[in-house]
Amino acid sequence: MPTIVVEVMPKAELLDPQGKAVSGALHRLGKTHFAGVRIGKRFEITVDEITDAVLAEVRELAETMLSNSVIEDVISITTPDSAVAGETH
Amino acid sequence: MPTIVVEVMPKAELLDPQGKAVSGALHRLGKTHFAGVRIGKRFEITVDEITDAVLAEVRELAETMLSNSVIEDVISITTPDSAVAGETH
Repeated sequence: MPTIVVEVMPKAELLDPQGKAVSGALHRLGKTHFAGVRIGKRFEITVDEITDAVLAEVRELAETMLSNSVIEDVISITTPDSAVAGETH
Repeated sequence: MPTIVVEVMPKAELLDPQGKAVSGALHRLGKTHFAGVRIGKRFEITVDEITDAVLAEVRELAETMLSNSVIEDVISITTPDSAVAGETH
């Protein structure tokens, strides 16, 4: 069954405590050439069929249910399996 | 500064409680054409420069620090900013 991938990241201007924790750990390990780390979420949604209507529905779900629009941005919705690999919608 | 994107997903054969929760909620909303949802992590690592050595280091970090190899797989390491968009390493 085809999958739709939704990627959500914290808004760039906001503090990302998880990212800060990882980047602090990297610096303590002496890896100072890593300037920063930001951590977001990646959703793989399996659907019966990929249609424009389903994609529109996924976009709406992404904005309302899969992300918190106050602190996060939906950065991409892609269909890795479809004819054109990595079609972005 | 260039970024390296690391994507980590739960191993396919393992139960993904978060994903199950979202997919249950979708079904309760009547959206039964969504067969399943899996939720993983997306890391954006900002580096001074992208070199083969840095990429090798990011791969090692991805396997050891950014994912739990018992329950998760590193599914891709890409450099969206580099000359060839979405180069996968």
